[in-house]
Amino acid sequence: MNIDGQPYRTIWESPKEPGMIQIIDQRQLPFQFVVEDLQTVEDVAVAIADMHVRGAGCIGATAGYGMWLATREAAQASDPGASLVASAERLLETRPTAVNLRWAVTRQLEALKVLSPDKWVKESQNVARNIADEDADACTRIGQHGLKIIEKLAAKKPFVNVLTHCNAGWLAFVDYGSATAPIYAAHDAGIPVHVWVDETRPRNQGARLTAWELGQHGVPHTVIVDNAGGHLMQRGQVDMVITGTDRTTHTGDVANKIGTYLKALAAKDNEVPFYVALPSSTFDWEITDGFEIPIEERSPDEVTIMGGVAEGRADESDIRLTPEGSAAANPAFDVTPRHLITGLITERGICEANASAIAALFPEHAKKQD
Amino acid sequence: MNIDGQPYRTIWESPKEPGMIQIIDQRQLPFQFVVEDLQTVEDVAVAIADMHVRGAGCIGATAGYGMWLATREAAQASDPGASLVASAERLLETRPTAVNLRWAVTRQLEALKVLSPDKWVKESQNVARNIADEDADACTRIGQHGLKIIEKLAAKKPFVNVLTHCNAGWLAFVDYGSATAPIYAAHDAGIPVHVWVDETRPRNQGARLTAWELGQHGVPHTVIVDNAGGHLMQRGQVDMVITGTDRTTHTGDVANKIGTYLKALAAKDNEVPFYVALPSSTFDWEITDGFEIPIEERSPDEVTIMGGVAEGRADESDIRLTPEGSAAANPAFDVTPRHLITGLITERGICEANASAIAALFPEHAKKQD
Repeated sequence: MNIDGQPYRTIWESPKEPGMIQIIDQRQLPFQFVVEDLQTVEDVAVAIADMHVRGAGCIGATAGYGMWLATREAAQASDPGASLVASAERLLETRPTAVNLRWAVTRQLEALKVLSPDKWVKESQNVARNIADEDADACTRIGQHGLKIIEKLAAKKPFVNVLTHCNAGWLAFVDYGSATAPIYAAHDAGIPVHVWVDETRPRNQGARLTAWELGQHGVPHTVIVDNAGGHLMQRGQVDMVITGTDRTTHTGDVANKIGTYLKALAAKDNEVPFYVALPSSTFDWEITDGFEIPIEERSPDEVTIMGGVAEGRADESDIRLTPEGSAAANPAFDVTPRHLITGLITERGICEANASAIAALFPEHAKKQD
Repeated sequence: MNIDGQPYRTIWESPKEPGMIQIIDQRQLPFQFVVEDLQTVEDVAVAIADMHVRGAGCIGATAGYGMWLATREAAQASDPGASLVASAERLLETRPTAVNLRWAVTRQLEALKVLSPDKWVKESQNVARNIADEDADACTRIGQHGLKIIEKLAAKKPFVNVLTHCNAGWLAFVDYGSATAPIYAAHDAGIPVHVWVDETRPRNQGARLTAWELGQHGVPHTVIVDNAGGHLMQRGQVDMVITGTDRTTHTGDVANKIGTYLKALAAKDNEVPFYVALPSSTFDWEITDGFEIPIEERSPDEVTIMGGVAEGRADESDIRLTPEGSAAANPAFDVTPRHLITGLITERGICEANASAIAALFPEHAKKQD
């Protein structure tokens, strides 16, 4: 998508220096736009571990390119095979629970193990490019399927109000995003669309990242506190909700950023369509009950300390929001049960949030269940 | 309630200097505890207008004492009557929509107009004390009625988890608070009670004021982001919700701080009792449909700018949270429809949130409707 009028992805090969990767350092957004050079496997490992990049698709693509850098380092090593395996292990340890990280590294190793080391650099570059392109392609398809929903709403109204929570935007993938893909598709097709951006406490991914990427691409949007969405729905100011998901069961239960469940309840109460957009890699084909998904408890500091910029400064500073001595709790995700979800928008199309509808769209996984 | 082991109210007569009022400057909480002297009507007007004090009951009591200071100034004036009326007008213009402000000033004027000016100082002191004492008394009764609900829950569990939103605590009244009164009553009665404190974006009254006053009184509590309450209810970690209200229709619809509606939806979905605590002065006996209550739109700066303390500092500083150029919207209240409310806790007892139950408890107002 566009930044200040220029098209960008979240990760790309340097046009000037062969064998160098470049990323957007997302930690510094929206206050500073910093492009970071990644030249070694260690650079990539640090970028993933310290969240210079985040989001399932973006982590996967970065790991894929990390393995390309690993083959270049292996070519200089006395034992290329040992070097490659050590690099793979270094990358895998950065975010141990990230499904796309393991998938990308494994895909590279599978492709390389049948080749002699002198062919690794070329082949791994192809695989890395494919991983990134396939991610962008899946998001493009999600956008085209979701666009049809927005087109139908636009036929009845002068403009369409979409509410989203957290950042399931292009910054979390290689391009387009999941929840944002239908929004960008509608905007680029000339449909007047306006986005209510949930701030998304405690880490403020909405107020920081979603607001920034929508603004850079020129999509009209308004930031609201997480408390406000229900009121806006009561007043008819929300036409649809689209969120992403961190994990969705094959039965249609959705684990996503904390607070998603509250918006789904309000959508149901006000008959506002509630959609979840996801590439099929986000389905969990094993778990049947969403409440079995483990919920990460993160540091209370994310609740009690807030980052932002003081007036007249560009760099970020932190302030404490709570009394000394008051404890805080920080569950990072919640589960939205399937009956609150209007539909799932996937790269293969839109389906209802239930086991048979999902199985009809992804029969190869349904067969695995037999 | 207690601050650092010492009992306090939000407003009191100086024990050392006759004719001086003292308040807690609530703007500086929780980072600094500052007692402010109010010696003139202008001091009182500034304290109310600039929100050194806030909350319906606390504003009313401060205005009541402001009228006492007004009688002392009138005694020095060439035209005591003109002086008193000018002071009343000065106080009334500070927060034009605050019902308790107008009520307290009018009550003073009604009491004084039948007396000669030489009796005003003594009489207005009595009226001011009565206003404060009656506010504290109403909250005490709310606490005793609500205590019975907590006692029943405590009979089944080792400790009781209460969730509250915003600050309907003693800082918003003269003492005890409305939503917090049953909690303090339970804690003081030795019932193990723990409070989930909603941060309450955008002004953070929960994270700042409720957390501070619970902490000072020694009540165990944990601050959470506004997004987290639904998840905690899904997991059985909330036994009841108690909130305050800014205005409640005589039919039981509740206007309260933005986000209250979302918690009420989650409570209903998880069969968690949802109570609203209020002195009867908060009832609107005219409006029948809660959605007719006007909702204040406040400055977007409250969403985009956050206050807190940087490490190693005691004074507060502000940071911006959002990208330059991203708009923000800030509706301050929402309406929770009566069917989501388990009961209303008033100074006369607990009733269901519907017109006939409210009328049965307050028949003198019900008659007015005929």
